Amino acid sequence: MAALFPSILHKCYGGTVGVYKRRSSFLKGETAFAVFLPERAIKGSACPQLYVLAGLTCTEETFLTKSTILSYAAEHDLILVAPDTSPRHTGLPGEDEAYDFGSGAGFYLDATASPWSSHYQMGSYISKELPAWIESSFPVKSNCKGIMGHSMGGHGALVHGLRNPDQWKSISAFAPICHPTQCLWGIKAFKGYLGEDTLSWEEYDATCLLLKGHIHPQSILIDQGREDNFLQQGQLRPLDFQAAARKVGQQLNLRFHEGYDHSYWFIQSFMKDHITHHLRFLW
Amino acid sequence: MAALFPSILHKCYGGTVGVYKRRSSFLKGETAFAVFLPERAIKGSACPQLYVLAGLTCTEETFLTKSTILSYAAEHDLILVAPDTSPRHTGLPGEDEAYDFGSGAGFYLDATASPWSSHYQMGSYISKELPAWIESSFPVKSNCKGIMGHSMGGHGALVHGLRNPDQWKSISAFAPICHPTQCLWGIKAFKGYLGEDTLSWEEYDATCLLLKGHIHPQSILIDQGREDNFLQQGQLRPLDFQAAARKVGQQLNLRFHEGYDHSYWFIQSFMKDHITHHLRFLW
Repeated sequence: MAALFPSILHKCYGGTVGVYKRRSSFLKGETAFAVFLPERAIKGSACPQLYVLAGLTCTEETFLTKSTILSYAAEHDLILVAPDTSPRHTGLPGEDEAYDFGSGAGFYLDATASPWSSHYQMGSYISKELPAWIESSFPVKSNCKGIMGHSMGGHGALVHGLRNPDQWKSISAFAPICHPTQCLWGIKAFKGYLGEDTLSWEEYDATCLLLKGHIHPQSILIDQGREDNFLQQGQLRPLDFQAAARKVGQQLNLRFHEGYDHSYWFIQSFMKDHITHHLRFLW
Repeated sequence: MAALFPSILHKCYGGTVGVYKRRSSFLKGETAFAVFLPERAIKGSACPQLYVLAGLTCTEETFLTKSTILSYAAEHDLILVAPDTSPRHTGLPGEDEAYDFGSGAGFYLDATASPWSSHYQMGSYISKELPAWIESSFPVKSNCKGIMGHSMGGHGALVHGLRNPDQWKSISAFAPICHPTQCLWGIKAFKGYLGEDTLSWEEYDATCLLLKGHIHPQSILIDQGREDNFLQQGQLRPLDFQAAARKVGQQLNLRFHEGYDHSYWFIQSFMKDHITHHLRFLW
């Protein structure tokens, strides 16, 4: 395993925030990811990891730049790992034509439909390749990894957390796409990446996963703004997820917030609570 | 005085962050500025104001988005006011040709040289017009206004604070351009905006202002990273400012930080200390 060298590195809160680039065997091309190492990790002590997954149109830098999460991660000695939201520059026709499909819209799944299946393997990249890189390069506390995300990244956090509860010890999400098989974003993405077999779509739908028995042993925290236009358009469907959680006994803390929208201004308003949530399970 | 209506408004920490646009009589065109109103101000209670001035290439959104300052302003009931860094779309030839002159590089001064003097009146805009708009529209605690800035905005904070100590009760800066008459950025900007009379340049040079007797009654806080490439290039010259402060008896807390660069990652690492500094004088 080659060491990871940053292409950009800044000191921040006594630790470092860097962007790293490496060729991924799953994505079949170079991919970028950002890592925050708290001072404690820089000094060689093992720290828990929190993966943060961003939403449509974002990159590996967006969540760390806009969410204020570094201040809390520094205070509580958490390593942050922020992948990009899709493969880039694959050369596949149409990859840059829409904000909700292709570049910036990988949906954190393993595509099975041609031609996307040749590169769009974000599911395996997030669950296997990236953790292997991180764990072989930085002082990580073993078996202490949480996952958090926003919007499409909230979908990613829920799906990865529910599918692999042994790997992801804690889950939280801001305004996640909770039931993608029943919303326009999800239907477009799943049709493109997974093809016409809608049964296969359920493997990447958090609400369906709950109903199929994928339950996480810990409570899941979800925050949702009531003035979120994507909530109002039916893209997010948190109540579907809540109903499924009640049906199968998944512990869930779903909070609605009056007046808040879909932006990072909403995210930063409740970030402290999310960090507190993850700390219960990671440290 | 017409009321201010936001063109964008987000709820954040129980308050609001908005971008407002209005025609400026000094800038002779529409200008944008961002305001954070803490929940206490939304409910009608008077709060102190903190003006935040961003650096070269930034807009009214940059500082609020990247510095993490909203979390502290919300906690301590501070109104934040973030102007743009220059006039925009003036039609002046060459306004968009350089990152360090014209658009995004107004240097918070009143230009006297043609053709820039027709629009580039950021000095009067910041000290007169913008405060009048804010104070007639929002519940501000009278006579409790501080100023903070980064790089070119740090220059702006020092210059405005020293020139008008009755108006600006507290001053702090991150990596400010401390002695612009003696660095390439400043010489280019002052030659363009103020013309060949170098004596007039001293009115907008914080180090010169100190030496001419412009002393602020409170201590000034400056943080500077030692790995800042602009420090190393001689653009910032904090030691010149420190020497002048010692000579004239200006209280100054100039702190150097090993390993930190010029970025917002540096700024956010020390933001809490700056807020604490301003709170001593504003609440």
